[in-house]
Amino acid sequence: MMQLYKYPSRVEYAEIVKRASVDYTSIKEIVAEIIADVKANGDTAIRTYAEKFDKVVITDIEISRKQLIDLSAGLDIGLKNAINQAIKNISTFHAAQKEQFRPIETTPGVTCWRNSLPIQKVGLYIPGGSAPLFSTLLMLATPAKLAGCKDVIVCTPPNKDNKIHPAIAYAALQVGVDKVFAVGGAQAVAAMAFGTNTIPKVDKIFGPGNNYVTVAKILLAAEGVAIDLPAGPSELAIIADVSCNAAFVAADLLSQLEHGPDSQVLLITDSEQVLDDVLTQVCIQIETLPRKDIVLQSLKNSKTILVNTLEEGMELANEYAPEHLIIACKKDERLASMVVNAGSVFLGNYSPESAGDYASGTNHTLPTNGYAKAFSGVSLDSFMKKITFQKITREGLDSIANTIETMAIAEGLQAHANAITIRIKETK
Amino acid sequence: MMQLYKYPSRVEYAEIVKRASVDYTSIKEIVAEIIADVKANGDTAIRTYAEKFDKVVITDIEISRKQLIDLSAGLDIGLKNAINQAIKNISTFHAAQKEQFRPIETTPGVTCWRNSLPIQKVGLYIPGGSAPLFSTLLMLATPAKLAGCKDVIVCTPPNKDNKIHPAIAYAALQVGVDKVFAVGGAQAVAAMAFGTNTIPKVDKIFGPGNNYVTVAKILLAAEGVAIDLPAGPSELAIIADVSCNAAFVAADLLSQLEHGPDSQVLLITDSEQVLDDVLTQVCIQIETLPRKDIVLQSLKNSKTILVNTLEEGMELANEYAPEHLIIACKKDERLASMVVNAGSVFLGNYSPESAGDYASGTNHTLPTNGYAKAFSGVSLDSFMKKITFQKITREGLDSIANTIETMAIAEGLQAHANAITIRIKETK
Repeated sequence: MMQLYKYPSRVEYAEIVKRASVDYTSIKEIVAEIIADVKANGDTAIRTYAEKFDKVVITDIEISRKQLIDLSAGLDIGLKNAINQAIKNISTFHAAQKEQFRPIETTPGVTCWRNSLPIQKVGLYIPGGSAPLFSTLLMLATPAKLAGCKDVIVCTPPNKDNKIHPAIAYAALQVGVDKVFAVGGAQAVAAMAFGTNTIPKVDKIFGPGNNYVTVAKILLAAEGVAIDLPAGPSELAIIADVSCNAAFVAADLLSQLEHGPDSQVLLITDSEQVLDDVLTQVCIQIETLPRKDIVLQSLKNSKTILVNTLEEGMELANEYAPEHLIIACKKDERLASMVVNAGSVFLGNYSPESAGDYASGTNHTLPTNGYAKAFSGVSLDSFMKKITFQKITREGLDSIANTIETMAIAEGLQAHANAITIRIKETK
Repeated sequence: MMQLYKYPSRVEYAEIVKRASVDYTSIKEIVAEIIADVKANGDTAIRTYAEKFDKVVITDIEISRKQLIDLSAGLDIGLKNAINQAIKNISTFHAAQKEQFRPIETTPGVTCWRNSLPIQKVGLYIPGGSAPLFSTLLMLATPAKLAGCKDVIVCTPPNKDNKIHPAIAYAALQVGVDKVFAVGGAQAVAAMAFGTNTIPKVDKIFGPGNNYVTVAKILLAAEGVAIDLPAGPSELAIIADVSCNAAFVAADLLSQLEHGPDSQVLLITDSEQVLDDVLTQVCIQIETLPRKDIVLQSLKNSKTILVNTLEEGMELANEYAPEHLIIACKKDERLASMVVNAGSVFLGNYSPESAGDYASGTNHTLPTNGYAKAFSGVSLDSFMKKITFQKITREGLDSIANTIETMAIAEGLQAHANAITIRIKETK
């Protein structure tokens, strides 16, 4: 069912950590057409694609505040409470990421500082349809509002009645989203990039989606549109030793695999017994899952790896650079200190990945596909820019003038040197 | 010479802030070919393109430490001292950007934190040839080393003798770059993205370059390769009032315009007198410039704008989102507090842009082309990833269990809920 690697050598790591590559070429052209159409025809194009792809005649592109309230009204109180607790924890964790303002005098009279300022307009794409990802709305809109973004807009696909899912409506109201549009797919992404009569142009686009959404983000990013992260299938690595609970590990593994047929798990352990026990548990637990068919497919992408030591396992995990990493080992904290590449890390037996997906407070928008080697997950920073400032006194400029002039002239930039010389000469 | 806008209405802002769009389509195909060739043929392709584009037969792709020392030996002592002072100030400013480790208990028993960890391998592209940008090497390699990146490599074009510029050699040694390669152009970028026998594959690519380099970075970024920033011509906005020194403002304006024929300046003022005085000074100072021809061209892209109030000027500047913003006004600090979109801001009469280009300590790799609305300049963060961690106790999990289960089930993800239920059931 899963591929097994027994005590692989370092040379084999490259093979083990390889992901299936996703080929978007077949839809690139159609997505480029959608983008061009939305750019040229705005709302008219939005309506055309809603009919074509979502099979719905859109009356209202924007879902009014009143509609949001009406939709929310019917939502189960238990789910409302759950959403509220999640918002509280996500807010607590992200609010602590605010940076202190701190001027630095690099040389007497030369004072430099950074200000973190909100990106003014952000657009969040939230998948709807069969699985309405209201949790993703919480993960994106909560830090956006904390950052102080002026306009936080959401696009999410309409259902057959030109409505959106009640949980998305409730989440949007609770977090304080400014506008919600019932628009899905590549056309929604294009609308937020260029603006239409109804949907405002934003400065940065966030959120996951199907292949059309992904390709739209790739194409627009190449034109300079800011996006959150490059996309890829969700994935998890688990490092487990004999201190783990095999049933818990199996449950975590299955929770990852139910995302989609292209999801992937790596189970790394130093114990053959753990391996056997987890696989047994997988076979038992899989039977009860409504998404069993998906799991059976994604299991095929998944791998179990027996390693000599847990440290070796950490090396392999770092090479893989997983989106999620669970360390279900006795020495979890020591191993966590060895993490070099990962999106989000879960320590011990009571930190399942689904805690981070929903309610512990960390963000669930994370780098997949090995991107964790260079990219961070979404955080408060993702909704802010850091602008540098400097104020130099006459004396401060004197003390670095010669350095600037010398370097500018060596780079062949005389006018750069002149801007210093003319100031220094003034009172000499 | 420059276009003049007198008291434009808000509606005219869109026209004023418009940049000339750069069309790369003509070279996209050739760059894609270079990338594919380097990916397939590695060092052989590197040598081919060095002969073709740089007119040099490469003997050594890597410049050895001994060669770097030999090249540096001949460098003027004044320039060495200048480079050393610049490194000191850049280090001071960027070292202060290190984040404190701070665990957050979002709910009793639910502890989350972020660790900033260095990107392991970074590649810096440094333009050489006529203008060897050793200052850019300082701006990229200094924070890379401070961040703790394990491998910091540099690619810079070879000269006719298969050597590199002595100032680049000296800067590389002083900052502690790990390896230097005499390779330029799109082939250098491709080599760092995929690795060759000689040049290691890196996790993120930094640095400016000609159109080939820019297009290579765009094409590779679309494949998921991490890059620093989207590129565009350099630009400056100056807000000046009667308290400014017109000669200083003219010098700053010219320092920006000498970068290239596509550079751009916006001069915004509430005083017709300032406007006249600055333009007079431009006419005087331009005569002495070695790069006068370039300046005469870039002046044509530049604009002067008379505004009713300085606050209105700040609104226009925010709409423009300039790479560099000089505020040469009496109330510079009050206006600086109104900045919403900019790369780097310079306050008062003694903070010329060239200070930030070389030696005040701030970074000069900044967002151009309006990207400052969503992107930050290069900083210590650019060389790090922020990884979230969480450790939840059994009691902590109890207190968020219901929330996670409820949300997971509402999203149709039963296995996500199971990962919680199986743990909570354990001792109930």
